[in-house]
Amino acid sequence: MNGSDKPAFPPDFRARLHALLTWRRDVRRFRGEKLPPGTIERLVALAHLAPSVGLSQPWRFVLVETPARRALVRDNFTRCNAAALAAQAPERARHYARLKLAGLDSAPCQVAVFADHAARQGHGLGRHTMPETLDYSAVMAAHTLWLAARAEGIGMGWVSILDPAAVCAALEVPADWRFIGYFCLGYAETADTVPALESAGWERRRPAPELLIRR
Amino acid sequence: MNGSDKPAFPPDFRARLHALLTWRRDVRRFRGEKLPPGTIERLVALAHLAPSVGLSQPWRFVLVETPARRALVRDNFTRCNAAALAAQAPERARHYARLKLAGLDSAPCQVAVFADHAARQGHGLGRHTMPETLDYSAVMAAHTLWLAARAEGIGMGWVSILDPAAVCAALEVPADWRFIGYFCLGYAETADTVPALESAGWERRRPAPELLIRR
Repeated sequence: MNGSDKPAFPPDFRARLHALLTWRRDVRRFRGEKLPPGTIERLVALAHLAPSVGLSQPWRFVLVETPARRALVRDNFTRCNAAALAAQAPERARHYARLKLAGLDSAPCQVAVFADHAARQGHGLGRHTMPETLDYSAVMAAHTLWLAARAEGIGMGWVSILDPAAVCAALEVPADWRFIGYFCLGYAETADTVPALESAGWERRRPAPELLIRR
Repeated sequence: MNGSDKPAFPPDFRARLHALLTWRRDVRRFRGEKLPPGTIERLVALAHLAPSVGLSQPWRFVLVETPARRALVRDNFTRCNAAALAAQAPERARHYARLKLAGLDSAPCQVAVFADHAARQGHGLGRHTMPETLDYSAVMAAHTLWLAARAEGIGMGWVSILDPAAVCAALEVPADWRFIGYFCLGYAETADTVPALESAGWERRRPAPELLIRR
């Protein structure tokens, strides 16, 4: 294919894309239904279209299914979350204790994302001065999964209150895999344009203009 | 707004979203036309809808406009690229020398993205065990910019062959801003579903199934 075959993205598509960006949420509360068979495989295949440094495609997806492994991850979250609570100032700590931060108890589908630092694919191109771009590539794959899932009405939440070493041990992944994030997927209890942390009074979105400076 | 107002994403939208993911490219060759006034501001506002840890919104966008600063970035790329070339094995080095890696000479719009490590927004939520999620949030904002641009027919390319310290100095950003990536935007010379590095014979895409393992 070449330029003459390129697809057009008309105004109504762009409007829906903006709606997708607006309605994507970090989902923490899931209804019980499982995802239809084949769904996560299809979503991961779309995530595989993400950009990667040197075309290294370093992302690795681990579908966490066994109750024993899920329990290990949940236990680690509980421990890390208690430490995070203790690190908050007293007035914020009271607020923190009321936040529901994980969907680990209710999410029917749970996926851990890693960046394979031993991947030779890409032959090191583009990561000589910035090796962290390997991790950034895996982040963009996770973000692609998020958007593709939401477009199918499936919510996703990112759990970062975890000890990477504990997750790697619980999931017995190769030593060269770096843990990027743990994701809960399922059908959200509610849909909203307002971030859950804003609804909960923890933080609010700020306007964009101050983020763009000129040089 | 609540769940009852949530937008539907019908099959034709999902098909176009897949086309967007498929046709998004790391663009290195740009035609000369400038972006219409207000375009980058609008795209950055969309990037501001990206997910961020603890709703910290740590991304900072620097629009690089002055020829002197652009020349500093370009000089740094040239130096880092020569070092990267030298690090390749001889047979790959010959191939490397033929790749056109940067769009710095032709891209009408150039944006550097940073993560503000001094940002207090979010009150540290979610980054106690994984402070790198602050950088990952800025990566997702850059990825959002990429998709939103492509939906408008605007190509984007990520330049990672740069020394972060040199870029921070050239752009005189605050000391707490961590450099994430330098992005070239403009109208692409060609459109293609095949990654430029695959067309150039540097690397090829691998199939997805081997990326998903079960635990």
